[in-house]
Amino acid sequence: MAEETLKKEDTLAMRLKLIGQSCRLFYSEDPVKIVRARGQYLFDENGKSYLDCISNVQHVGHCHPAITKAAAAQMELLNTNSRFLHDNIVLYADRLASTLPEKLCIFYFVNSGSEANDLALRLAQQHTQREDVVVLDHAYHGHLKSLIDISPYKFRKLAGQKEWVHVAPLPDIYRGIYREDHPSPGQAYADTVKHLIEEIQQKGRKISAFFAESLPSVGGQIVLPKGYFSKVAEYVRSAGGVFVADEVQTGFGRVGSHFWGFQLQGEDFCPDIVTMGKPMGNGHPLACVVTTKEIAEAFTANGVEYFNTFGGNPVSCAIGLAVLDVIEKEDLRGNATRVGTHLKDLLKKLQAKHDVIGDVRGVGLFVGLELVTDRERRTPATKTAAWVVKRLKEEDQICVSTDGPWDNVLKFKPPMCFSLENADLVVRCIDRILTDVTANDLKLENEDI
Amino acid sequence: MAEETLKKEDTLAMRLKLIGQSCRLFYSEDPVKIVRARGQYLFDENGKSYLDCISNVQHVGHCHPAITKAAAAQMELLNTNSRFLHDNIVLYADRLASTLPEKLCIFYFVNSGSEANDLALRLAQQHTQREDVVVLDHAYHGHLKSLIDISPYKFRKLAGQKEWVHVAPLPDIYRGIYREDHPSPGQAYADTVKHLIEEIQQKGRKISAFFAESLPSVGGQIVLPKGYFSKVAEYVRSAGGVFVADEVQTGFGRVGSHFWGFQLQGEDFCPDIVTMGKPMGNGHPLACVVTTKEIAEAFTANGVEYFNTFGGNPVSCAIGLAVLDVIEKEDLRGNATRVGTHLKDLLKKLQAKHDVIGDVRGVGLFVGLELVTDRERRTPATKTAAWVVKRLKEEDQICVSTDGPWDNVLKFKPPMCFSLENADLVVRCIDRILTDVTANDLKLENEDI
Repeated sequence: MAEETLKKEDTLAMRLKLIGQSCRLFYSEDPVKIVRARGQYLFDENGKSYLDCISNVQHVGHCHPAITKAAAAQMELLNTNSRFLHDNIVLYADRLASTLPEKLCIFYFVNSGSEANDLALRLAQQHTQREDVVVLDHAYHGHLKSLIDISPYKFRKLAGQKEWVHVAPLPDIYRGIYREDHPSPGQAYADTVKHLIEEIQQKGRKISAFFAESLPSVGGQIVLPKGYFSKVAEYVRSAGGVFVADEVQTGFGRVGSHFWGFQLQGEDFCPDIVTMGKPMGNGHPLACVVTTKEIAEAFTANGVEYFNTFGGNPVSCAIGLAVLDVIEKEDLRGNATRVGTHLKDLLKKLQAKHDVIGDVRGVGLFVGLELVTDRERRTPATKTAAWVVKRLKEEDQICVSTDGPWDNVLKFKPPMCFSLENADLVVRCIDRILTDVTANDLKLENEDI
Repeated sequence: MAEETLKKEDTLAMRLKLIGQSCRLFYSEDPVKIVRARGQYLFDENGKSYLDCISNVQHVGHCHPAITKAAAAQMELLNTNSRFLHDNIVLYADRLASTLPEKLCIFYFVNSGSEANDLALRLAQQHTQREDVVVLDHAYHGHLKSLIDISPYKFRKLAGQKEWVHVAPLPDIYRGIYREDHPSPGQAYADTVKHLIEEIQQKGRKISAFFAESLPSVGGQIVLPKGYFSKVAEYVRSAGGVFVADEVQTGFGRVGSHFWGFQLQGEDFCPDIVTMGKPMGNGHPLACVVTTKEIAEAFTANGVEYFNTFGGNPVSCAIGLAVLDVIEKEDLRGNATRVGTHLKDLLKKLQAKHDVIGDVRGVGLFVGLELVTDRERRTPATKTAAWVVKRLKEEDQICVSTDGPWDNVLKFKPPMCFSLENADLVVRCIDRILTDVTANDLKLENEDI
């Protein structure tokens, strides 16, 4: 396999000609061509290396040899569909089950987080025999038609809000309606869901499900306040709905201390359905829905087969098993805790130095740095954030990106082998760029950069 | 990679415990455990080989070494997302473009036929700014919520027909409303779509798209009458809609004479959107939507990014390219024509001998054998079909399966390396089983087998 067949300008020209323009490029003004990668490093066609702070999909590191080996070995042997009996699918389900509360024990394997969330919606609606869904503001659950409907991040720009979709406030204690000074933000935000459900019921409607990312990502790398999920689950269930935790971005140990993001909400909390995706196959299209026996049985009771052509095939499951092995063997959860804590500490120190840093938050290797032009008003410093991203790429060959409704949150979701030294470097570079912004009194927010 | 880790009974027990029961097993009363495969042969845990007549996904043959090699080589080098520039995605799009009419030139890569059809629906609806869709009776376009809505095969058993979905008769010239004795069945069936569109318009509704599999599969391995697509496209376009050809089951040379099933309908016909999937990655989750510049531009004009996490990644595209190479190098289209024609000829000879064979149809390695209890009335011989499937498995280790609204059509969609000798064997075995049915005067249709 050649690293490069075309000159970069030809690749770009063909890309513009052949691929839908809705599929955007990173750094669209000066896109990067990556031909090789290893661990947390990307290499362009000239051999220049980039430190990758954003590829959460390549969870155990780019091109991990254990993953390639497992994939190739199974590809040589067998790759068929799940209508035949095979060990890999059951061994993999069993391994995943051991990371989850006992109640979550029935698995459906699919090919993407979007397919997983679509199936979760079907499961919830079939089980409850209801349609309505409550979602968090700014949520993104996938690119499929059904998921655009339940993703405020998308539907606000597209078809608009359907009558069966209801949006609860994002429990963002930095920028939301209840903030860090509130005595009990978890309860307060949960109450907004309670009141929303009451409003829904007053309209004569009934909720089927509450969907939430365990740590809202597109919403701005949000860590939910303690107690929120437990309380919400109580309200949702007493209204007859089910709780769906979307772990597509956050699962598989990214938060370090726990295997799943929802587990940060305490041992007493267990979702009814969990969806998983991105990091699951380290880049291989692999995703999953797990649910309770009761919900699975309601789905079976409709008498209709669920067949997913590629879902749960022996190769996908072999890769999934290899990813779990590497997470354990290399103690990547421990690394996420150590490096994530270090990164957050360094960023907090930086916050003392640079007024533009409004908030530093995160758990494990899921970290957000929110930039503001005014700490009091918390005005989003969107252009400054874009400027930092651009300069980190151009001057330091570091890939970061932004998130949040105002694109002012620098996000860090690197491969889980990200090191302490990597964290030191990134923070040092951000420090230099922010110092430069201040020293030169750059009024980025007023300029067209 | 061990071929087998668990005893078969343990695999089955774990499967029943851990995997949703809606995910059904082949031969559910006595499922087969397959641990290895090569070409058109499957091997169980005891080394017993099965001739595979149904794995249309493993298009160039199970575990083709060229595919494994391409996958492993690219996995070692790089697997990232399509937001970075990479040669594979553009080289692959370019290769696919060379198989298609010039007008179909903008590509979107996704992970499954279902994701492809969902995106096709979004493209059509965005382009036309309309919602309504016309589909063929008994059609199946995928397992996602949006696709169940446009799949009569599924929605009749589930949520029912939505007001924006309209069902046209399946152009089945053996069993449909116009049959082989009609002077112009293509025109006659196209007229049913014309009249349906008029009815839709009389209700004040406007159609966005006509969706059809180029050869309806679940509908019963149907070969559409000549001229049907051209005429339908004319009516659909003059009503402001677009034509979507679903090639998820039928593309990549399965029909032998052409690369795409829709091309059987003549050179003057070109769809507005084509979706592809199953055989594309020889088992790797890979699928695609191709459309016109105009439709792609309308999609871009909404200003919203389309990002598919795994879609078009370097490994998927390397595998896709390798599949195209093998189709060419091994002349698999030529083989599909030769072996498919031979198989159909043999089955037609069998038809002269066995009254239970009502129809033999197909193109290339897409062949259907329709069983009936009464040739005049064409009464579906559903139980006989199930009996043949069961005996072929038990006595001859041949895997075939049934399709069609009455599950009385034996389907043949083998890997494209299926040989003349394989065809001889299958037909000989079917002959023996049908002779046995007649000789023993088995009244299968009246019994609970």
